[in-house]
Amino acid sequence: MQNIDWEKFLIPYENAVEELKVKFKSIRNELIKMGEYSPIEFVTGRVKKISSILEKSKRLEVDMENIDKEIEDIAGIRIMCQFVEDIYTVVDYISERDGKDLKVVGVKDYITNYKDSGYRSYHVIIEYPIQTAFGNKNILAEIQIRTLAMNFWATIEHSLKYKYKRQIPDPIQLRLKNAADAAFQLDQEMSQIRHEIRQAQKMFEIRSST
Amino acid sequence: MQNIDWEKFLIPYENAVEELKVKFKSIRNELIKMGEYSPIEFVTGRVKKISSILEKSKRLEVDMENIDKEIEDIAGIRIMCQFVEDIYTVVDYISERDGKDLKVVGVKDYITNYKDSGYRSYHVIIEYPIQTAFGNKNILAEIQIRTLAMNFWATIEHSLKYKYKRQIPDPIQLRLKNAADAAFQLDQEMSQIRHEIRQAQKMFEIRSST
Amino acid sequence: MQNIDWEKFLIPYENAVEELKVKFKSIRNELIKMGEYSPIEFVTGRVKKISSILEKSKRLEVDMENIDKEIEDIAGIRIMCQFVEDIYTVVDYISERDGKDLKVVGVKDYITNYKDSGYRSYHVIIEYPIQTAFGNKNILAEIQIRTLAMNFWATIEHSLKYKYKRQIPDPIQLRLKNAADAAFQLDQEMSQIRHEIRQAQKMFEIRSST
Amino acid sequence: MQNIDWEKFLIPYENAVEELKVKFKSIRNELIKMGEYSPIEFVTGRVKKISSILEKSKRLEVDMENIDKEIEDIAGIRIMCQFVEDIYTVVDYISERDGKDLKVVGVKDYITNYKDSGYRSYHVIIEYPIQTAFGNKNILAEIQIRTLAMNFWATIEHSLKYKYKRQIPDPIQLRLKNAADAAFQLDQEMSQIRHEIRQAQKMFEIRSST
Repeated sequence: MQNIDWEKFLIPYENAVEELKVKFKSIRNELIKMGEYSPIEFVTGRVKKISSILEKSKRLEVDMENIDKEIEDIAGIRIMCQFVEDIYTVVDYISERDGKDLKVVGVKDYITNYKDSGYRSYHVIIEYPIQTAFGNKNILAEIQIRTLAMNFWATIEHSLKYKYKRQIPDPIQLRLKNAADAAFQLDQEMSQIRHEIRQAQKMFEIRSST
Repeated sequence: MQNIDWEKFLIPYENAVEELKVKFKSIRNELIKMGEYSPIEFVTGRVKKISSILEKSKRLEVDMENIDKEIEDIAGIRIMCQFVEDIYTVVDYISERDGKDLKVVGVKDYITNYKDSGYRSYHVIIEYPIQTAFGNKNILAEIQIRTLAMNFWATIEHSLKYKYKRQIPDPIQLRLKNAADAAFQLDQEMSQIRHEIRQAQKMFEIRSST
Repeated sequence: MQNIDWEKFLIPYENAVEELKVKFKSIRNELIKMGEYSPIEFVTGRVKKISSILEKSKRLEVDMENIDKEIEDIAGIRIMCQFVEDIYTVVDYISERDGKDLKVVGVKDYITNYKDSGYRSYHVIIEYPIQTAFGNKNILAEIQIRTLAMNFWATIEHSLKYKYKRQIPDPIQLRLKNAADAAFQLDQEMSQIRHEIRQAQKMFEIRSST
Repeated sequence: MQNIDWEKFLIPYENAVEELKVKFKSIRNELIKMGEYSPIEFVTGRVKKISSILEKSKRLEVDMENIDKEIEDIAGIRIMCQFVEDIYTVVDYISERDGKDLKVVGVKDYITNYKDSGYRSYHVIIEYPIQTAFGNKNILAEIQIRTLAMNFWATIEHSLKYKYKRQIPDPIQLRLKNAADAAFQLDQEMSQIRHEIRQAQKMFEIRSST
C-alpha cells in the first residue's frame, strides 16, 4: 500500500456514506410518516479529503498500510438532533442494529465528557460491509450525533483549526470557549422547554382523566 | 375564486420555490468554487400548507380572491447564515437583482427590531415571474434570512405555536424567551470570533508588509 | 392482517427501494470513476401502488395475509443497459452478492423466452433485510434488467394495459407487437455495433503488436 | 480572453443548466399533477467539458474571445419525449416563453431534415439571462428535443465519434446507419400506436354519446 490508488481506495467509503445516509434518513421519514416524533432532524455525510487523511496519519503516526484499520473517520456520517435527549435515542437505534446491517466497534461520549476546547458530540464507530464492483470490504465509519447548537459550534471550530493549522491563537480560543458556553446554555434552555412541554401534557392528561 | 382549485393554484408557487432554491444555492456554489467565503450556509424552501393558508387568511381577514395579493409567504425561501453580518451581505445580493430576475416589494428587519416573542430574522418580500404549462403569473414570495441559531429557535417556536394553537402557556413562553436570549448570546459570541479573526488577519498583513 | 395499516406495511419496502437504488447506482459510479465501461446506464425504483397490489392479489387469488410472501414486486428496482450483453453482466454482479447483502430467491429470463405480447426483460427476485425504527423484516424485491429499447417498449405496454384494464384491443395489440419487433431489431443492430467495435479493436491490437 | 479563467467562465453556464432543468422538469410535474398527459418524459443537462469546447473552437476556427458568442452548446439541455409528435408540443412551450424568461435565437430541425449519419433531433438555441454573485450575463444555451429512440441512438454515436476521434470506420458507420433505421422504425410504430389509441378513444366517445 506504499503507493495508494486513492480513487480505488476511497470507493467503498463513498458507497458506505451514501448507503448510511439513506438508512438514517429513512428512520426520520418513517417516523414522520407514522405521525411520531423524529429524534433525527437531518443527516449529512462526507468522505475525508485525501490531504486530511495524510495529515491525520502523519499526526497519529499511522503507517500507510494501516490507515483503513486505524483512521476511523474516513467515512463520516453526522446526525443532527433538536434536543440533547434525542442523541441517546439515536444511539439506541444504532445499538439495536449491532450485528445486523452494521457492527458497533466503539463509542466516545464527548457530551458527558466534553473536550477542553468545548467540543461536544457523541461518536459511534462502526464496521460496515460494502460490496463493490471490484469485490467486498469491511470498512470503518464514524457516526457523529449532535444537537444543532453543538454542530453549529463544531463547524466554526473546525474551520478555525483548519485556518490556523491546529494552532488557534489564545484570544480566539477564549472566544470559542465562550461560544461553546453559549451553545451549551442554548441546549439547556431547549431541554427545559422540552421538559415543560411534557409537564404541561401530563397536567392536561391528569385533568382530562378526572 | 370562491372554490379554489388548490392543486392548480399552488403550481406556480411550487415552481417559484424550486427555481429560487436553485438560484440561491448557485450563489453558494459559485463562491466556494472561486475559493471565496460564502455568506450562505444552506437554503431550504416550502410551499405553505393549504390548512395554514386558510388559517392565516381567516386570522388576517383576507378574502379568498385576494390571498395571492395579501398573503406574502405562500412561497417561502429560507437562507441560513453563519454570522449575523452575513445576513446583510445576502440582502445586498437580493437588492442587486431587483428589477432583473425578481422585484423587491418590501423588507421587514426583525433583527434590529426583534419581536416580543424573541423572534429574529430578516424578511424580503419579492415578486417573481413564473411561466407554467398553463400560462404566466407574477407571484409573491417571502425570503427569510437568518443565522443558524435564529433558525434553530424559530423552528422550536413554530412547532410550539402549532402545538398550542398560537396560545403558548406562560411558563413555556418564558422558557422560550430564555432560549431566544441564549441564541442571541451565541450569535454575539460568534460575531466576536469573526471580529477577532479579522483583527488577527489584519495584524498578520501589517507584519508581513513591513 | 385483515385490516392492513398500509402506511406502516409499505415502510420497509420504501426503505429497500431507496437502499437498492443507491447500491446499484454506486456500481455505475465506481466503474466510471475507474475509467471502466459501466454495463448499468441508469437505475430507477418504485414501490407498487396500493391499488395495484390489491388488483394483483385479487387476480392471483392471494390472501391478504400472504401478500408479503407471494407478491414479489411490491419493491421494484429497474436497471437499464445499453446492450443486451450488459444485462448478463449485471445478473453476474447480483449473483456475486448472493448471501451477502441480499439473497437471490429466483430468476425469470424473459429475454431468451420472451412473452407472447413481445415483453422482454430479465427479472431477479431477491430477499433483502431491512432495519426500520419499528423493527426488522426480510422483504422480497424484484430487480428488472433491460435494454433501453426493451424499457421503452415496456413503458408503453404498461400504460396501455392500465388504460384498457388489461384488455388491449386487437389492432393496438398488433401495433404493439410490431413495435416490439422494431425494438428487438434496434437491440440486434446495437449488439452488432458492439461486435464490430470489438473486432476493430482486436485488429488494431494485432496491427500494433507486429 | 487569451488566458481564460475556466472555473469563472463556466459558472453562469452551470447556473443556467441548473435553472433550465428545474424549469422543464416543472412542466412535467405540473401536467402530471393536473392529471394531464406530459409530452416531456425526462430532462437532463450538462455543461460542455473544457477539452470539448477547445476541440470544437479549433474545428470551427472560433477565436477564444468569441467562444461565448459562437459556440452555442456550452450549456446543453436535453428533453426526452415518448412520441415524435410530443417534440413539437415541447417546441411550442418554448416558443410561448420567447421574450419572457428566455429568448429564442434559432432552431435546427434535424427531424424533418435528418443528418446523413442518421442523427435526428430538434435543436432550439436560446439566450438566457443569468445573475451570478459576480454580476449578470446573457449566455447561449442549446435545448435538444428527442424521442427516447433518437436519444438512445445519439448516445451511441456520440461515444463512437469520441472513441474514433470523429473518424468512425466504414463498417461501423454502416451498422450505425442500420441502427438509426431501426430506431426510426421504432418511432414510427410508436406513432402508429398513438394514432390507434386516439382512434379507439374517438370511437368510444361516439358510442358513449349516442
